[in-house]
Amino acid sequence: MHQYYQTLRLLASQASISATEWEWFVNATTVKHIPSGVTIVQSDHEVYHAYFCTNGLFRLYYTLPDGREYNVAFTLENDFATSYGAMISGSTSMYTIQAMEDSTVIEIPYTALQVLMDRSHNWERFVRTAVERLYIRKEERERELLYLTALERYQAFLVKYPGLEKRIPQYHIASYLGISPVSLSRILHSCD
Amino acid sequence: MHQYYQTLRLLASQASISATEWEWFVNATTVKHIPSGVTIVQSDHEVYHAYFCTNGLFRLYYTLPDGREYNVAFTLENDFATSYGAMISGSTSMYTIQAMEDSTVIEIPYTALQVLMDRSHNWERFVRTAVERLYIRKEERERELLYLTALERYQAFLVKYPGLEKRIPQYHIASYLGISPVSLSRILHSCD
Repeated sequence: MHQYYQTLRLLASQASISATEWEWFVNATTVKHIPSGVTIVQSDHEVYHAYFCTNGLFRLYYTLPDGREYNVAFTLENDFATSYGAMISGSTSMYTIQAMEDSTVIEIPYTALQVLMDRSHNWERFVRTAVERLYIRKEERERELLYLTALERYQAFLVKYPGLEKRIPQYHIASYLGISPVSLSRILHSCD
Repeated sequence: MHQYYQTLRLLASQASISATEWEWFVNATTVKHIPSGVTIVQSDHEVYHAYFCTNGLFRLYYTLPDGREYNVAFTLENDFATSYGAMISGSTSMYTIQAMEDSTVIEIPYTALQVLMDRSHNWERFVRTAVERLYIRKEERERELLYLTALERYQAFLVKYPGLEKRIPQYHIASYLGISPVSLSRILHSCD
């Protein structure tokens, strides 16, 4: 089981989290295998857990009023998949998080996270820096949508999610870029 | 001078910050008066301070490639005005922060904030929860832009920034809503 915790253990060490503080975390969390297509967070539902993806792939998507789905982000290996705002505010999630491959996550109950932060300055720091990374990504995404052309957004996608273009259907990339699959196809041919 | 610190002192008390920990903060920060039209953060420049607005009004805006300005947020009294991502990552700011009225801020050096967080779990918590609020606003804004009609975005603006519609020119509201001043005028007439 401990193989799944390796990357998080490294991140925790960098935040000066001690062996004892780390054990608290391991004891409070669960490794879960999520088959492709299954959702771990459902829009309009409350959120009681954060997830760290140790392998596999997730998409975070909004369901628009007309029924279309809009991919707002992806989570690859060694990254958090979470509806953080809903979890901490007790409101319902605005988006759904769904496995796009058979995946494995570490499930972190929010109540456990609160206890860890209460008991340990180091865990408080760990969470603070994790939230900062979430925030910076939202700023970057905002900037991309304001400044970049569709082609530039595609290039930014390739850099942000290395190799992902080979793992998911093109229509999911188009949805993330905010363009139609036909427009994406045109961009890809212009790159040949 | 201490009158400017009242709201922050209250927020700090709620985060269990002690009298001694509070004095560290007061000694590390400066009250500054910012005349209308002056910028406190300039796009493409590095950012060394966060600001807490005690009175007055700021806008945060992007300058688009074609020269247009896009208002991404406003800061009213008793709220932070900060290019947080740039400050903590050492990169240059993507947007400008400009006073729209004669304003007063508490200027907080990032270096001081880092010292406070190192010395005090309570200050670490204070910053963590402040970043969480910034993050939640970005999520809300994303949702507004994806889901809401222009009229609904205007109604959300009225709720989010009470009274602001009387303090700034309509073209600044239109820029925030992502519509032309003519479209906003049409919406306002349809509400009459």
